[in-house]
Amino acid sequence: MINKLITKIQKTNAPIVVGLDPMMSYIPKHIQIKAFAEYGETLEGAAEAIWQYNKGIVDATYDLIPAVKPQIAMYEQFGIPGMEAYKRTVDYCKEKDLVVIGDIKRGDIGSTSAAYAVGHLGKVMVGSKAYTGFNEDFATVNPYLGSDGVKPFIEVCKEENKGLFILVKTSNPSSGEFQDRIVDGRPLYEWVGEKVAQWGSEHMGNGYSYVGAVVGATYPEMGKVLRKLMPKTFILVPGYGAQGGKGADLVHFFNEDGLGAIVNSSRGIIAAYKQEKYASFGEVAYADASRQAVIDMIEDISGALKR
Amino acid sequence: MINKLITKIQKTNAPIVVGLDPMMSYIPKHIQIKAFAEYGETLEGAAEAIWQYNKGIVDATYDLIPAVKPQIAMYEQFGIPGMEAYKRTVDYCKEKDLVVIGDIKRGDIGSTSAAYAVGHLGKVMVGSKAYTGFNEDFATVNPYLGSDGVKPFIEVCKEENKGLFILVKTSNPSSGEFQDRIVDGRPLYEWVGEKVAQWGSEHMGNGYSYVGAVVGATYPEMGKVLRKLMPKTFILVPGYGAQGGKGADLVHFFNEDGLGAIVNSSRGIIAAYKQEKYASFGEVAYADASRQAVIDMIEDISGALKR
Repeated sequence: MINKLITKIQKTNAPIVVGLDPMMSYIPKHIQIKAFAEYGETLEGAAEAIWQYNKGIVDATYDLIPAVKPQIAMYEQFGIPGMEAYKRTVDYCKEKDLVVIGDIKRGDIGSTSAAYAVGHLGKVMVGSKAYTGFNEDFATVNPYLGSDGVKPFIEVCKEENKGLFILVKTSNPSSGEFQDRIVDGRPLYEWVGEKVAQWGSEHMGNGYSYVGAVVGATYPEMGKVLRKLMPKTFILVPGYGAQGGKGADLVHFFNEDGLGAIVNSSRGIIAAYKQEKYASFGEVAYADASRQAVIDMIEDISGALKR
Repeated sequence: MINKLITKIQKTNAPIVVGLDPMMSYIPKHIQIKAFAEYGETLEGAAEAIWQYNKGIVDATYDLIPAVKPQIAMYEQFGIPGMEAYKRTVDYCKEKDLVVIGDIKRGDIGSTSAAYAVGHLGKVMVGSKAYTGFNEDFATVNPYLGSDGVKPFIEVCKEENKGLFILVKTSNPSSGEFQDRIVDGRPLYEWVGEKVAQWGSEHMGNGYSYVGAVVGATYPEMGKVLRKLMPKTFILVPGYGAQGGKGADLVHFFNEDGLGAIVNSSRGIIAAYKQEKYASFGEVAYADASRQAVIDMIEDISGALKR
């Protein structure tokens, strides 16, 4: 799957991923009205609105991008109907041949991580039959529990040719509270990064590992260090756009081959129509605004990479 | 909710929680056969088997215990039907007036943690209406992202009188890889523990905070230190029984008042009938075996506390 991701990045010339993190406040009124007319102001109504909203964005952008990253929390908050909208979104994106990175940030003790891995990336056995639960291509994983919380995910990835992005240095303001603490002269995130590189060596694709890392766009200097520390690790970079990261800040997340990183934007793409820059599209044509925002993001990042 | 948990612990004289972490291999054949006859060997069939299995255990033990801790991964692996079985289990345990600790180990950047908090502990708005998603009483949270990943959970807990248990020192063998690393002369888990105590001071119940900590039974010496470092923090202690912890190891997780900790056992209770000690109950009477295992666990722990 890391090979497929890289091939698609090369084909689209777009090392970007669209974060499908729907909030009700982003969803245009006409979609909400239609969904509520059918299902009422219910969890089912919210799930229908989310799904229609996502579908519009995917239909308008799938030919330009290699991958999407649905944030499961935004669906999980709507209970079971929300989880159904998540699954429907994952399935639809896969139909469109997009690589789907499930931003699930799971991680637990070994047997429990194994269950998450099976449910999101692998197959679960019921009697003599095997079923997929959510069936994403990649999943994000939290490393706080150490190797035996991560390895069950890697085992399933080996069986299924799927991949991971493990949290190393997150994009949020307080990420430094624990991640930046100095251990034997170096910040904890470097130790985690080294471990990710080591885990990754167990499951290599062509040039890059199936085991990637998450490093926030908001910390470009740290990204530069981590890039060198984990040369064969693909880096998923959240925090571009709405969280403050810019294309020029991101060049050091990439290797000399122009690969090695994929930059996520969520709100900046999916709610583009709410920005002054794209306001002329209007609310009804929200998906066209998202398409233009994707084009502009590709230009910003590939422009910075060319310089 | 921390007050209710404490009241129930005092009433049952049982500082224990039953981990409802169903694995297909634990579920007695007669339950599986019935569920598969109705739904086939499908995800729905697995979900039905899990639900019937859980219901049997809850019916046989609810009068003896204050709380249950369903591990969501064990349900999530069966996709949407699994999540429905999780919700049904949570709802049923609440009907039985048990405190429900959702072992979800979520945690993300601020806006995302807010969505998880709303979905699991609070209410989500759909238009003008408010709905609960999963509606547990407590949730477990991963601290790797720092304060702004945790505070949205605390905000929802304040609104709803609910609580958290934040991972400090986990029970698994590799938990030390990052958690034990020395930062300014002390292990990272102590720094996390101090932070948990600080977060907890923002949302206090009668004597103990609504913000608790997870510290594994498998590390009793560290539990002793953490107990003193977080005097008003309730500690959820996994790792008893199957993972190796014993009653005598656990006394230092408690305060002088006999409170301050709640010990989880999962496999040791729910699959008790598979142990030699309880084999005479037989597979059909698996729930009676679970009841006896609960009685024995209470005896082990309260015996150790008396000494």
